[in-house]
Amino acid sequence: MSRYWSPVVHQLSPYVPGEQPKISNLIKLNTNENPYGPSPRALAAIAAGVNDSLRLYPDPAALQLRQALADYYALEIGQVFVGNGSDEVLAHIFHGLFQHPAPLLFPDITYSFYPVYCGLYGIDYQALPLDDAFELRVADYLRPNAGIIFPNPNAPTGRLLPLADIEWLLQRNCDSVVVVDEAYVDFGGQSAVGLIGRYPNLLVTQTFSKSRSLAGLRVGFAMGDAELIQALERVKDSFNSYPLDRLAIAGATAAVEDREHFEHTRQAVIAERERLVQGMTGMGFQIPPSAANFIFACHPQRDAGELAAQLRERSIIVRHFRQPRIEQYLRITIGRPEENAALLAALGEILGSA
Amino acid sequence: MSRYWSPVVHQLSPYVPGEQPKISNLIKLNTNENPYGPSPRALAAIAAGVNDSLRLYPDPAALQLRQALADYYALEIGQVFVGNGSDEVLAHIFHGLFQHPAPLLFPDITYSFYPVYCGLYGIDYQALPLDDAFELRVADYLRPNAGIIFPNPNAPTGRLLPLADIEWLLQRNCDSVVVVDEAYVDFGGQSAVGLIGRYPNLLVTQTFSKSRSLAGLRVGFAMGDAELIQALERVKDSFNSYPLDRLAIAGATAAVEDREHFEHTRQAVIAERERLVQGMTGMGFQIPPSAANFIFACHPQRDAGELAAQLRERSIIVRHFRQPRIEQYLRITIGRPEENAALLAALGEILGSA
Repeated sequence: MSRYWSPVVHQLSPYVPGEQPKISNLIKLNTNENPYGPSPRALAAIAAGVNDSLRLYPDPAALQLRQALADYYALEIGQVFVGNGSDEVLAHIFHGLFQHPAPLLFPDITYSFYPVYCGLYGIDYQALPLDDAFELRVADYLRPNAGIIFPNPNAPTGRLLPLADIEWLLQRNCDSVVVVDEAYVDFGGQSAVGLIGRYPNLLVTQTFSKSRSLAGLRVGFAMGDAELIQALERVKDSFNSYPLDRLAIAGATAAVEDREHFEHTRQAVIAERERLVQGMTGMGFQIPPSAANFIFACHPQRDAGELAAQLRERSIIVRHFRQPRIEQYLRITIGRPEENAALLAALGEILGSA
Repeated sequence: MSRYWSPVVHQLSPYVPGEQPKISNLIKLNTNENPYGPSPRALAAIAAGVNDSLRLYPDPAALQLRQALADYYALEIGQVFVGNGSDEVLAHIFHGLFQHPAPLLFPDITYSFYPVYCGLYGIDYQALPLDDAFELRVADYLRPNAGIIFPNPNAPTGRLLPLADIEWLLQRNCDSVVVVDEAYVDFGGQSAVGLIGRYPNLLVTQTFSKSRSLAGLRVGFAMGDAELIQALERVKDSFNSYPLDRLAIAGATAAVEDREHFEHTRQAVIAERERLVQGMTGMGFQIPPSAANFIFACHPQRDAGELAAQLRERSIIVRHFRQPRIEQYLRITIGRPEENAALLAALGEILGSA
């Protein structure tokens, strides 16, 4: 607390990211990173940029990357916005598109950064309860609102909302922006990007941090009608002209172009997810169907907080949210085969020692 | 214009960065980049990070870089904040420290992003006129204010405010934050960082884009009392947890540690500046004393806009601001010796052909 702070600063409840431990030899299944490395073409493109040209500013419009994304998703370049991670892209969306009189709507169990952005930009919100199976009921969202946002698949539940439900909502909610946050969509969902031409109020966000395996490079993007993108550009150019550095632009562009590596690694993650679900279900865990690179698991006889602590003792970190309705769940990132095997072995040991 | 935009978006006047031309063979003296490349140690540190570890998020607190800066400037780590270029750091400062009832104060001729931030965050401001020699009179700033900000040396004039004047102001303006934006200070100014322990309302910002020659990497920082830094951390953690990517953290840390390269290149820029000033003064240009890596030049007999166009025809780009009081000035970045020689030759040709 300080008299020099702007009043808004006193009221903020900043987001708490998953731990990035400094110790090695940990099995890190807590921040939904990709267990496989980035595209070798992305690494080569980055390496090629490590030279004296770093003395020069990057292209403030990041045209090369936006064109690659437009080509990939069959959009115009003016329908693509890029930023320093999808967290920055989301911040600009809240600032530039959600500051309207009615409350913003999102699920009660969802990405915990959404209410934080609301605090930063003075946006009123309503968190609408998912049903008991953690499913989102789109009919609940037919009420006056400043905008609607939800991840699909949802985080931390992994549950997927069918595209037909999203279109049903878009047909009935025309007066505000609907943001589908597709951070995890490549692991089993169908993107809403194909609906963009038909709904001028649809905005789809994605990230290079998950299926593209470049969390360390900080690149995210949004796709939608050019008028929505223009709002984000105006906010961005009033905030920071050059949010993406030269290496991020080069690496992300090459990652988009390497379809083979992308397909190969995401299929490997999906296969491992199914194996892990099978193994944990066999131990009595209850796991809602996941379309993401993580699962959300609950054991009827075990306290989730204790399980997390016991895994930690065995050098395995998973994420546990001390939050109503989900305090008995663990969010577990899909790791490499040997990591998942170690997790299953550790859980077997912990549960066996009951 | 769109009904989906937040009201603030309609009123923004986004910043227009200097052109980043795609054509090669241009002599680019328009965006104050360093003519010399970054530290070889910085390049090596970045190259060492181009591997599978990019699948992992960076350290959200960027402790390694903040510690290196704290060591360099003899501060505590809690007195250092880092961000995605000093533009992002400044945005968080405007948001977190300048939203108070009285107007924010800054010079009428200064970094043109300041009024843009005010638009983004709804901050009222007064632009106080520099005197006719483009000097800042600190006594003008003794009036009710939400904060004070000025670059030192100032941009685009290059003029330096003596440290004694800054301290005089800090002694008399205790109720709001005074930000000294030292983007260019390493080219001839004395940093105010030594005053931090004595003035809890002093915040100093710097960047890796100029004297550290890493504009392409996007790293900036702020130094000040821990309570001010805490406000910036709270805003940052409500906006984007991971603004600095892994390569930026690694490269910037190594750049801070390479004192030799830093000293060598900044002295070379200073020497070239003096040579360029001498040459252009000989052609009749009037140039206020510059402590930056650029000069601000006016020719009594020539229109600045025309001169800029004539230089452009000769593949040399400089910056011309169509703005009251300075429309007859050109801001020219100090280039490498051969670039400055080419500039002098081109100017000789243009002026000779009058």
